[in-house]
Amino acid sequence: MSQPQAERLQRPRVDALDAILGEVMPVLDDGFVRVVDYMGDDAAIVQAARVSYGEGTKHVSDDRSLIRYLLQRRHSTPFEMCELKLHVRVPMDAWRQWIRHRMASVNETSTRYSIAIDSAQRTPAARWRRQAKSNRQGSDGLLQPAKGAELSRREAELHEHARAVYRDRLDQGVAREQARKDLPLSTYTEAYWKMDLHNLLHFLSLRMDSHAQEEIRAYATLIGEQIVARWVPATWEAFQDFRSGALSLSRLERRIFAAVGRGDPDEARRVAAEAGWLKVSSRTGALVRSRERSECEASAAELGIRLPWQVQEAVAEAD
Amino acid sequence: MSQPQAERLQRPRVDALDAILGEVMPVLDDGFVRVVDYMGDDAAIVQAARVSYGEGTKHVSDDRSLIRYLLQRRHSTPFEMCELKLHVRVPMDAWRQWIRHRMASVNETSTRYSIAIDSAQRTPAARWRRQAKSNRQGSDGLLQPAKGAELSRREAELHEHARAVYRDRLDQGVAREQARKDLPLSTYTEAYWKMDLHNLLHFLSLRMDSHAQEEIRAYATLIGEQIVARWVPATWEAFQDFRSGALSLSRLERRIFAAVGRGDPDEARRVAAEAGWLKVSSRTGALVRSRERSECEASAAELGIRLPWQVQEAVAEAD
Amino acid sequence: MSQPQAERLQRPRVDALDAILGEVMPVLDDGFVRVVDYMGDDAAIVQAARVSYGEGTKHVSDDRSLIRYLLQRRHSTPFEMCELKLHVRVPMDAWRQWIRHRMASVNETSTRYSIAIDSAQRTPAARWRRQAKSNRQGSDGLLQPAKGAELSRREAELHEHARAVYRDRLDQGVAREQARKDLPLSTYTEAYWKMDLHNLLHFLSLRMDSHAQEEIRAYATLIGEQIVARWVPATWEAFQDFRSGALSLSRLERRIFAAVGRGDPDEARRVAAEAGWLKVSSRTGALVRSRERSECEASAAELGIRLPWQVQEAVAEAD
Amino acid sequence: MSQPQAERLQRPRVDALDAILGEVMPVLDDGFVRVVDYMGDDAAIVQAARVSYGEGTKHVSDDRSLIRYLLQRRHSTPFEMCELKLHVRVPMDAWRQWIRHRMASVNETSTRYSIAIDSAQRTPAARWRRQAKSNRQGSDGLLQPAKGAELSRREAELHEHARAVYRDRLDQGVAREQARKDLPLSTYTEAYWKMDLHNLLHFLSLRMDSHAQEEIRAYATLIGEQIVARWVPATWEAFQDFRSGALSLSRLERRIFAAVGRGDPDEARRVAAEAGWLKVSSRTGALVRSRERSECEASAAELGIRLPWQVQEAVAEAD
Repeated sequence: MSQPQAERLQRPRVDALDAILGEVMPVLDDGFVRVVDYMGDDAAIVQAARVSYGEGTKHVSDDRSLIRYLLQRRHSTPFEMCELKLHVRVPMDAWRQWIRHRMASVNETSTRYSIAIDSAQRTPAARWRRQAKSNRQGSDGLLQPAKGAELSRREAELHEHARAVYRDRLDQGVAREQARKDLPLSTYTEAYWKMDLHNLLHFLSLRMDSHAQEEIRAYATLIGEQIVARWVPATWEAFQDFRSGALSLSRLERRIFAAVGRGDPDEARRVAAEAGWLKVSSRTGALVRSRERSECEASAAELGIRLPWQVQEAVAEAD
Repeated sequence: MSQPQAERLQRPRVDALDAILGEVMPVLDDGFVRVVDYMGDDAAIVQAARVSYGEGTKHVSDDRSLIRYLLQRRHSTPFEMCELKLHVRVPMDAWRQWIRHRMASVNETSTRYSIAIDSAQRTPAARWRRQAKSNRQGSDGLLQPAKGAELSRREAELHEHARAVYRDRLDQGVAREQARKDLPLSTYTEAYWKMDLHNLLHFLSLRMDSHAQEEIRAYATLIGEQIVARWVPATWEAFQDFRSGALSLSRLERRIFAAVGRGDPDEARRVAAEAGWLKVSSRTGALVRSRERSECEASAAELGIRLPWQVQEAVAEAD
Repeated sequence: MSQPQAERLQRPRVDALDAILGEVMPVLDDGFVRVVDYMGDDAAIVQAARVSYGEGTKHVSDDRSLIRYLLQRRHSTPFEMCELKLHVRVPMDAWRQWIRHRMASVNETSTRYSIAIDSAQRTPAARWRRQAKSNRQGSDGLLQPAKGAELSRREAELHEHARAVYRDRLDQGVAREQARKDLPLSTYTEAYWKMDLHNLLHFLSLRMDSHAQEEIRAYATLIGEQIVARWVPATWEAFQDFRSGALSLSRLERRIFAAVGRGDPDEARRVAAEAGWLKVSSRTGALVRSRERSECEASAAELGIRLPWQVQEAVAEAD
Repeated sequence: MSQPQAERLQRPRVDALDAILGEVMPVLDDGFVRVVDYMGDDAAIVQAARVSYGEGTKHVSDDRSLIRYLLQRRHSTPFEMCELKLHVRVPMDAWRQWIRHRMASVNETSTRYSIAIDSAQRTPAARWRRQAKSNRQGSDGLLQPAKGAELSRREAELHEHARAVYRDRLDQGVAREQARKDLPLSTYTEAYWKMDLHNLLHFLSLRMDSHAQEEIRAYATLIGEQIVARWVPATWEAFQDFRSGALSLSRLERRIFAAVGRGDPDEARRVAAEAGWLKVSSRTGALVRSRERSECEASAAELGIRLPWQVQEAVAEAD
C-alpha cells in the first residue's frame, strides 16, 4: 500500500456494457430502461478491497474468489465503489415502490414544470391478476380473459376520461402543478436514477423476489439480468449464489436439523415444542397451524431431512 | 467530560408538545398531521453540542445563544439528536414530493395489502390556480369562481368514475396491487414518518418556502408553526432568523455592494460588466434581461443600496 | 387506518430501560456506555408495521409473531421507528471502527476545543493476543504472561511519554488541535451516539460477531445483551433467532445437500465438481484446499449431512 | 422527454481530469491525493436537471447559467449525478475529521489485516501553531522557531519510540490488531474515498473554510482547486460565487440594514435593542459584548453601511 499504483491511469470500462449504452430496453407496454453511465467494474471492487484488507486478501488467490468472499460476508464498501446511472420510464404506481430505496440519486421529470407524459400503463385482457387468498402474496393466478377484456375496456375509458380532464384543465389555464392532481397512478414518469452497486444488489434482491409486484419485478429483472450481469459478471454470479439463491436457516432450524442429523429426534422435538410449534388442536387432534413450523418443514423437505413430528404423522396416517 | 453526568436520569419531555400528542391536526380537505412521539428537546441539542465542543462552548453564555450559534454555522449533528415521529394523511400527489426527502423513516399504508383510503383531495371552486407565466413559480393567482365551479364539478365526476372502477375491480376479484393502478394521484394515503430535527429543518426550509407547492406548504407550515415551534422553541426562533428569514448575497453582490458602500461606483460597474450583467440590447438600447442582475437589484432595493447602472437609467429616464 | 387512533396519547416507555437510564456501565479498563435516551419500544415497531401492511398483518396473531416475521424477512422500516441514544467512552482505536457505521448521529468530544481525556487503554499482562496464522481472524490465543508483563511495562512507558509530550506542548502554548497529533490511538474519547434500531441491529450483527475485534466486541455485546435486550425484548429474541444465530446456505450448498437428501450423491458430486471444489492435487493426491468447500463441509457436519467426497475419503483412509 | 435521447451513447469524459488521472499530488510531508476515477461532468448535471425541470429550464439559456441557478437555489440532486473517487494518504488525525462526512464510500487500509504504514506526519520547526485565545478558532500565529525546533526534536523522539514499540510487539507475535493500539494519531493511513459532487461541495465548503484545521484544509484546498476546478469548471465557479464566497445576512441584519437604507435609524436601533444587542454595561458605560452584534457590524462594515449605534459611539468618542 505504501506506494501508490502509478500504473493505473485508465478509467475502467466494460465493453459489454458500452455496447448497450443509451439503448432503449423496453419494459411493460410503454416503459424502458437505458444505461446512461457507469463507474467501475469487477476489478474496481477488488482494487478497493485490497486497499482495505491488504495482506488479509493474499490468501484469496484470484479476483473472482475475492468477490465471492466479499459478497458472502456482506462486505459492502467495495461494492459501493461502483455506480450505475439509468434513464427509466416507469408507471408512477411502480415508481412509488422504487423511490422507497433511499440510497439513490434521482432526477424525476416534474409535472409541475412540464406537461405529464401522455401515456398510462394499460393492462391486456389476459393480464388481470386475481387477489391471493394468502395475504402474504399480492396476487395468485389470472382472471378469465372474457372478464379481463371488460376490465381492459373500462380501464381505457378511465384513462381517456382522466386525460381529457387533464387537458381541459391546462386549456382553461389551470397551473400544471394542480392540473395533474387526478392523473391515474398508471401514468408514466421518467427519471435519471443513480445507485451504487451495493445498494443496487439490495434493490434487486427485494424487487426481483417472487413476492415483489409483477410490474417492478419486470424492471428489476431486466436491470439484473441484462445490465448488471454484463457490467460486473463475477459479482452477479456471486449475488445469485450467496444472496438471491441462498437459504437462511434460523437458530431453531439449525438446532432441530442438527439433532435429527445426529440421530436425536427427541431433542429435535423438544426444541420445536419449546418454540410452540407442536401445539395440538383439541378440536381436530392435528397440529395447530404455525408459520415458522411450516417454513421449517419446507426447508427440511428441500434438504431431504425428515422431521420427527412429520414421521409420526405419517405413521399415524398409515395406521 | 471525564466524569459522566450521573445526575441526568430522566428522559427529556416537553409539556407543550405532550399537550397535543396524538391530536389530529387537519390539513387540506381531508388530511391531517398527528404527533406520535418525539425524542429530545432544546436542552438535548445543547447537551450534545457541549460534549463536542467542550471548553469551546464556554464563551457562549446560555443555551439559547449556543443554539443560535450552532444553527447559524450549520453545525448539524447536535440537531440530529432530536427526532419527531408523525402520523400523516396526505394526497399521494403531495406525498410524492414529501418522500423525496430521503433522510426519513417511513411506513406508508400499502395498497397492496389494504384497500386504498376512500378519499381523494377535492378542490373548491374558488381554489383553482392559474399557471404562472414565469416558469419559476408554479402558479400565480386564481381562476374565476364560475370557471372553477365547472372544474370542481368535473373533478368530482372523475373521482367518482375512478372510485367506481376501483371498486368494480375489487368486486371482480382483481388483486388489490393491480386494482389500484388507476386511482388518481389525489387519493389520500397515510404514513408514519420519522425524521431528525436537522433534516426536518431542511425539509421545512424547502417546503415552507413560497416556491413550494401550496398543498405540501400547508403541511410544512403546520409542522413548523404548530409542532416544531412548541417542541424546540429556541431552535425554531434561530431557524427563522438564520435560515428561512436569511438573505444570501453572492460573491459578486458582495463586491458590488461593498464598492458602492465605499463610494466607488466605477468598480461596482466593472464587476457587473465582467459578470455579463450590463449587456445592452442593440435593438432597444436597454439592458438585456439577466436573472442574476435582477436578483442583485432586488437585494439592493431591500437594503436601500443604489446601484450605479440604476442611477444612470433613472437619470436617463428623467431626461 | 382511516380513523387515526386518537386513544394513543402517551409516549411509549420501557420500565426496564428507564431503570438503568444514565447508569455508567463499565467496558474495558476505563470505558463505559450509558443510555441517555430512547424512542419507541417493541409495540412501536408493531404499530408502524400495521400502518404499512394493514390487513396484511391480520394473519399474524400477536405482536411477537409479527416482529419475528418482520425481522426474518428483513423488513427494515418498522425497526427504524425506534432510536437509542448512548453516551460512550471508547479508545480511539475502537472508535475508528465504530464510526464507520454511517447511519448514526454523533457528537464526539473535540480535542480541538478541549484537552484530551487523560486516559489511554492499558493492556493487562495476561491479555496480549497472538497474531492468527489464518489472516481471516485477527488474533488467536494469548501470549505468555511473562512476555505480556514486559509488553505491558513498555506500553505504560509509551503512554507516559506520549502524555508528557502532549502536556509539554500545551504548556508551551501549542494549539490543542496540533498538540494532540501524537496521542496514541488507545486514548479514550467520548461521544453521544444515536442510532435507529434497524441500523443498531446491523451494527450488533457485525460487532458482536466472533470475527470482530475483542475491544469493540466488548462494547457491542454490552449494548446488545444489557441494553437492547431490556429495551425491545421481542426484537432481541428475533434477532438472535434469525440474524446472529442463523446459518446461510449458498445456492450451491442447497443443491448439494438436496441431492444428498434425496439419495443422489452423483448429482451432489457433479455440482461440487462444477464449482471447482474437487480438484485433486497431483502432488499429494488429496483435494486441493478450497475455502468454499471447507465451509460447505462445516455446514454439512453441523447438520449431520454426509458429503459424497467425504465418504469416499473416509473409505479411502479406512483402506 | 417522451423520446429518449438515443444519440447519447458515449460516456462523458473530461480531458483536463484524464490528464492527471492516477497522478500523485503531494499534501503535507508524506500525504497525497490521486484521482482514481470519476463519473459525469458539467454537462451531466445539466442533463439530469433538464429531465427534472423540463420546460422549466427553457428560460435558462445556457448550461453555465443553469448550473449557477441550480447551485444558488441549493438544488442538490443534479450534482449528485457526478462522482469522484480518490486514493488518499492522510494522517489518522485529519482522517478522523474527514470520515465524519458520512455520505461517502470508503475503503481504508486496515491495520488489523496489514502492518501500519511506516510514516507519521512530522512538524517542521517553523510550523508549530499557537493556541488561539478565542475559542472559536483553533490556532492563531506560530511559535518561535527556536521553541519549535525543540518541539520537533521531541516529536521525532516520540515517533521513534512509538514505532519501536509497535515493531517490538509484532516481533513478539502480538496480533496486528492489538499491536497498533498505541500508534500516534499522526500515523498515515490510506483509503479509497468516493463521494458525489453535491456532498463533495459540502465537504469542501466546511474543510476549505478558514476555521477548518490547517491539515485537512490542505487536502480540501487541493481537491477543490486542483481537481474539482478541472473536472467541473462551471460548477466550481458557481460554488465560489454562491457558496464559499457568499455572505448570509440574518433576518435581523436584513431588517436593520433595510431600516438604515431607507433612512430610519430609529427602527434599526429598535430591532437591535429587541434582539438584546444594545445592552450597556453599568460598569464601563459601553455596549456589552455580543457575538451577533459584532458579526452584524462586520457585515455592515464590508457593505459600507453605518449602523446608528456606531455613529453615536463615534460621535461620543469625538466629543
